Amino acid sequence: MLNEIRENALIERLAGSFSRSPLQLNALQESDAELIRLPGTELVLALKTDLIVEEIETGLYDDPYLIGWMAVMANASDLAAVGAQPVGVLLAETIPPEAEAGFLAKLQAGVRDACAVCGLHVLGGDTNYSAHMQVGAFALGLIPNGAPMTRIGCQAGDLLYSSGALGQGSVYAFCKLQGEGRDAAAFRPVARIREGQAVRLFASCCMDTSDGALATLDQLMRLNGVGFRLSTPLEKILHPDALALARSRSLAPWMLLAGPHGEFELLFTVRSDREPQFLECADALGWHPLCLGAAMTEPAIHVVAGTGTTVLDTATIRNLFGQCGGRVDAFIQGLHRLGPAPLSA
Amino acid sequence: MLNEIRENALIERLAGSFSRSPLQLNALQESDAELIRLPGTELVLALKTDLIVEEIETGLYDDPYLIGWMAVMANASDLAAVGAQPVGVLLAETIPPEAEAGFLAKLQAGVRDACAVCGLHVLGGDTNYSAHMQVGAFALGLIPNGAPMTRIGCQAGDLLYSSGALGQGSVYAFCKLQGEGRDAAAFRPVARIREGQAVRLFASCCMDTSDGALATLDQLMRLNGVGFRLSTPLEKILHPDALALARSRSLAPWMLLAGPHGEFELLFTVRSDREPQFLECADALGWHPLCLGAAMTEPAIHVVAGTGTTVLDTATIRNLFGQCGGRVDAFIQGLHRLGPAPLSA
Repeated sequence: MLNEIRENALIERLAGSFSRSPLQLNALQESDAELIRLPGTELVLALKTDLIVEEIETGLYDDPYLIGWMAVMANASDLAAVGAQPVGVLLAETIPPEAEAGFLAKLQAGVRDACAVCGLHVLGGDTNYSAHMQVGAFALGLIPNGAPMTRIGCQAGDLLYSSGALGQGSVYAFCKLQGEGRDAAAFRPVARIREGQAVRLFASCCMDTSDGALATLDQLMRLNGVGFRLSTPLEKILHPDALALARSRSLAPWMLLAGPHGEFELLFTVRSDREPQFLECADALGWHPLCLGAAMTEPAIHVVAGTGTTVLDTATIRNLFGQCGGRVDAFIQGLHRLGPAPLSA
Repeated sequence: MLNEIRENALIERLAGSFSRSPLQLNALQESDAELIRLPGTELVLALKTDLIVEEIETGLYDDPYLIGWMAVMANASDLAAVGAQPVGVLLAETIPPEAEAGFLAKLQAGVRDACAVCGLHVLGGDTNYSAHMQVGAFALGLIPNGAPMTRIGCQAGDLLYSSGALGQGSVYAFCKLQGEGRDAAAFRPVARIREGQAVRLFASCCMDTSDGALATLDQLMRLNGVGFRLSTPLEKILHPDALALARSRSLAPWMLLAGPHGEFELLFTVRSDREPQFLECADALGWHPLCLGAAMTEPAIHVVAGTGTTVLDTATIRNLFGQCGGRVDAFIQGLHRLGPAPLSA
């Protein structure tokens, strides 16, 4: 069922012949960060690497500060999704040999500031030179005791939460790639590090929305064999910017969750009997998680908007962007054509 | 003194504004891998990232199996140079979207086989798509107890050793870039993991030769404020292939140590009173390290070849390849022009 999604099938094909470490707690796809047991201790390491390549090549990220920021944040968000304490990053920077000092200073300032916000330090790195820029990082976190949080463990009836309103990743990508010249400073997602550490105490599964909210729900569905009904109306789930864009462009609200560029919130499930304690803990952090709905037995994604419930074909939606060769216009036309079947309200 | 070398100055400029982690044992440049103390334990983590970028772009590595092999080995060698036990790697692969299945299978086979030789596992990774291929990894190792080995600690009088004969990295690069069509399978360096773990018990400093042997000696000189006299004739230090190439191309033997493409041996120093115990340990491993000479007070690099001693201007040599824009012919002409001053034999 995982391999119905093109990206999952590619990962399986690339990683299929590798042996797993006896120290590794998670199997392929099961966790946002790799979880490594440290012999003779209670510690678990959380390791992650993510590189910013296509985002630079397509022009989605062209501001050097944003590129540096995102290279750290994409990795930090995966540490958050396993509930790890941040330790540090190693940078992997391929930069143009003719890059000006001002450009590099902004890139490094983005790295530095993102690290400071997340409680990470730059531990080291590798710098290479090529006209084809790409910037990434490798992040290290620690889970001091207890079971780490993974994408696995959700059961029907568990409550589905988001760490915050969704859709800002799509808003940024839509405006940037349609040449609407939004202020580059408008998109500065912050990994939910502190929230992730709290979520780890209560959640039955967790994953970040870095690849888009619907992709996240679809992946959790495939991994856990359960579906999700988002009974909270999408109008309340979407960030106000996303809702405004949907209205001004005549997009259905769910389309703002369908793009592959996410916003680094956490989606997680909590067993209903643990909800009161979880909300108490969130309240103590001054944090207001958003209840989206609940897991259900049927492996499908249902959303509520306006007066009706809609079932979304998330497999087709996830594969669509690649099939469109990454062209935003074609992707949006494709979403319109999908015309999800309305259910009774 | 470090910043006399262009690459050192760039690293300083890129990393200068970053704060260091209180858990990190090494400062910038002081270690082949980053060394992170784990609170509440005796464990030290060794972390490293290295990406294969210029080697692919220039055509130095064009065989997919070799690219996969080197992406692992370059990182494994840095784990070896701090004496760490290997744990695993995360891969960072940017591959052409149109890459054929056979090409990818060879790339992954190179990764898999290099990991198996080094006792590493693939823990995870990130795959991106671009016409501009680059492949790298992040490596994790463990140092279970005691002080990790760094590039720092050598004193005048310490004996200088290499884990093996030198110059094969230069031979491969020379032949490949001069279009001599050597068999791609001829270059398969193996990181000195087991030897590094033994060296850690005895060495006063250690560094791998991944950037070339003279660059390594020069860097150890700058970091420790001592020089090195290679009293063993270069004819005995060079690998037979390197010596043969020097003879057939009328190159001075030292030129085979001057290129920036190394062979992943370890250069390290041992206090003279510890040498007997070190050699006993090496013998037990069936390993024959090569004594090159000794550290000396004067911060210079002296080599012996033929009937004379030569002092090498390693700063000029290290900066030369970049100044030649990476062109091998110009680099070799530059080496010839350097005409190192002969000393009395």
